[in-house]
Amino acid sequence: MPLLVMKFGGTSVADLSRIKNAAAKVKREVERGYDVIVIVSAMSGKTNELVGWVEQTSPLFDAREYDAVVASGENVTAGLMALTLQEMDVPARSWQGWQVPIHTTSAHSAARFVSIPRDNLDAKFAEGFKVAVVAGFQGLSAEGRITTLGRGGSDTTAVAFAAAFGAERCDIYTDVDGVYTTDPRITEKARKLKRIAFEEMLELASLGAKVLQTRSVELAMRYKVRLRVLSSFEDTDENSGTLVCDEDEIMESRVVSGVAYSRDEAKMTLLKVADRPGIAAAIFGPLAEAGVNVDMIVQNISEEGFTDMTFSCPVNQIKRAEKAISEARVRGAYEYGELVVDDAVAKISVVGIGMRSHAGVAAQMFAALAAENVNIKVISTSEIKISVLIDRKYMELAVQALHDAFQLDKAS
Amino acid sequence: MPLLVMKFGGTSVADLSRIKNAAAKVKREVERGYDVIVIVSAMSGKTNELVGWVEQTSPLFDAREYDAVVASGENVTAGLMALTLQEMDVPARSWQGWQVPIHTTSAHSAARFVSIPRDNLDAKFAEGFKVAVVAGFQGLSAEGRITTLGRGGSDTTAVAFAAAFGAERCDIYTDVDGVYTTDPRITEKARKLKRIAFEEMLELASLGAKVLQTRSVELAMRYKVRLRVLSSFEDTDENSGTLVCDEDEIMESRVVSGVAYSRDEAKMTLLKVADRPGIAAAIFGPLAEAGVNVDMIVQNISEEGFTDMTFSCPVNQIKRAEKAISEARVRGAYEYGELVVDDAVAKISVVGIGMRSHAGVAAQMFAALAAENVNIKVISTSEIKISVLIDRKYMELAVQALHDAFQLDKAS
Repeated sequence: MPLLVMKFGGTSVADLSRIKNAAAKVKREVERGYDVIVIVSAMSGKTNELVGWVEQTSPLFDAREYDAVVASGENVTAGLMALTLQEMDVPARSWQGWQVPIHTTSAHSAARFVSIPRDNLDAKFAEGFKVAVVAGFQGLSAEGRITTLGRGGSDTTAVAFAAAFGAERCDIYTDVDGVYTTDPRITEKARKLKRIAFEEMLELASLGAKVLQTRSVELAMRYKVRLRVLSSFEDTDENSGTLVCDEDEIMESRVVSGVAYSRDEAKMTLLKVADRPGIAAAIFGPLAEAGVNVDMIVQNISEEGFTDMTFSCPVNQIKRAEKAISEARVRGAYEYGELVVDDAVAKISVVGIGMRSHAGVAAQMFAALAAENVNIKVISTSEIKISVLIDRKYMELAVQALHDAFQLDKAS
Repeated sequence: MPLLVMKFGGTSVADLSRIKNAAAKVKREVERGYDVIVIVSAMSGKTNELVGWVEQTSPLFDAREYDAVVASGENVTAGLMALTLQEMDVPARSWQGWQVPIHTTSAHSAARFVSIPRDNLDAKFAEGFKVAVVAGFQGLSAEGRITTLGRGGSDTTAVAFAAAFGAERCDIYTDVDGVYTTDPRITEKARKLKRIAFEEMLELASLGAKVLQTRSVELAMRYKVRLRVLSSFEDTDENSGTLVCDEDEIMESRVVSGVAYSRDEAKMTLLKVADRPGIAAAIFGPLAEAGVNVDMIVQNISEEGFTDMTFSCPVNQIKRAEKAISEARVRGAYEYGELVVDDAVAKISVVGIGMRSHAGVAAQMFAALAAENVNIKVISTSEIKISVLIDRKYMELAVQALHDAFQLDKAS
């Protein structure tokens, strides 16, 4: 029997009527001949309620107990979803993490999968059950304690089950109807992509297209799990949403797939630091220890024996970065002339696997920005992505210009 | 290390501050040198919320899924209680039913204990944990599914753990401060009992003194578990509350321990039924099948070859009883002259293990009622209890008169 994994997030199971709506989508797939593993999140708001209780009880909480409390939200949804399916005459059974069992590491609240044995679920499918409803986001440690995977872990659970059971596809039902060429709030010309490669999705996700958790896309890429993102709140069929898949499955010959942005970035430049081996480690080690999420890094020669070091980080981490830098200087880790902070920049990126084989994408991007008189402050490139920092006030303009320049509004 | 079981019901853990209050009581026992097993209910209201969701989802719900959903309420409290104790520097760990594991039958929503192996909890106590917080009301079936014991199952869980672990005592913290000689709302003279025998407690519980679940008292009696009922909301010490124990432990030489009542009773009399072997079975079989809770039964000879059969049942079951009786007559199960229904009676009972060795208790009871001109409609006696049905309007008067007559306001 072919098997599908279907995952419903918190807003998709927020109340009994939404659970019913989700169950109807499951039933349709059963009628098409699939066995289905459904992964559910907690009803939206429930996880926050449970986390709130834990944090109020114990600010420096024991993660084992945190996990035991918080995982109960998904258990409730799993039972209610199984009951809803039964009411629709679909034989269904709920599964908590320890019942499957979903073996994970003992890193509570950030556990990783160790193995998902198929025996128990397979036995139930063989008995005639058509649907296994699995509580997402949780597992079982070797010590017999409940673990959780951290926020967003339900997506990862879905991909892991799809890999373990050789599912034909893993459908992630969410509150958006797919992955777009850019944010539709910035340009109406944004177009939903039918397909996108894993690598592209990873770049878009980490750049702020918050449709899928990065870890779930990584896992899907590693195990070649075909992921589909589609809406819980619309009628959907085989062609709905966006398929995230191996680039071999993407026929369209496009160079750029999307334009991503990140609004609240800061640019920090250390002027006149000694140009010596180990200077980068001396600067970025303390920043990492302080928990500053350094993103782009650019180094320029300024004058003989000195260099300027520029990096970007989220705007709300400026204070933390400044503190780490001045403490490092006091400790004598390195010297510098001046620290220049620009707290009004945004990052724009164009992403596409086609760049690998097409030269001139960067030049085309810079030309499009120049035509709008947008000054580029920092440039950083990878194999399938070009990112620039620009003044924040030009962000929307730049996204629109690049979307037009690469003709993303036209199906390729 | 001596061990105590402490059980906190839903109102005793209704919110984080009440959980803290309960945890302080646990900490005090740990400081006195006990290892403690804490049994917790769901935060009050939570079980009803979960049951409501299940019933709305599926009116004829699958009890396996009902149990999986509903048991999550206790799991949340167990985790929060463990965290609260940790915050107070008491090493504590939470335990869900499947983790202990609490083996039960597979009778979902009405499961019974099969066994509670000590190994896992003992290992943790040996590691230095002082408290095991166990989610009450739940267990694990042989099929690996979550079971629940039915409402009130947390009391039963507490007693079962006390029996399995040889606890010195099982303290049931609740919203009353003990067991009284009668309902204090009916007479201010009602006095809290220091001790009461299991048998007396059983008679009082089934008569409406809703302090402890009947099943938990039965279990405690069978395994000689010393049960103490005391208040969550007061300062308590070794002498607080009421100890429910074996009669050997009760030194006081009293004849009657308490006066119980049940307000909404009905008396039904079948006049002139044939006095033949099997007539009682013919009458009460169909009533039991119809789910009528028949309580007292009295049979009188009326005239040659005929008898009058009187029984009592809850007033809200009159319609059901009438239907069962008339259907039985149509089927030809038996004939009768007339069915007389009195829907305005109450039951009053005096209870005491001392009755066994003291004659004249019934006479004293009837005299006390006669002195107040209360007419007795039905009498039924057992070894340690005498019950009568009287007009409901005299109920309070009768309870007060009997409380005085047996001098229950005076410590014996």
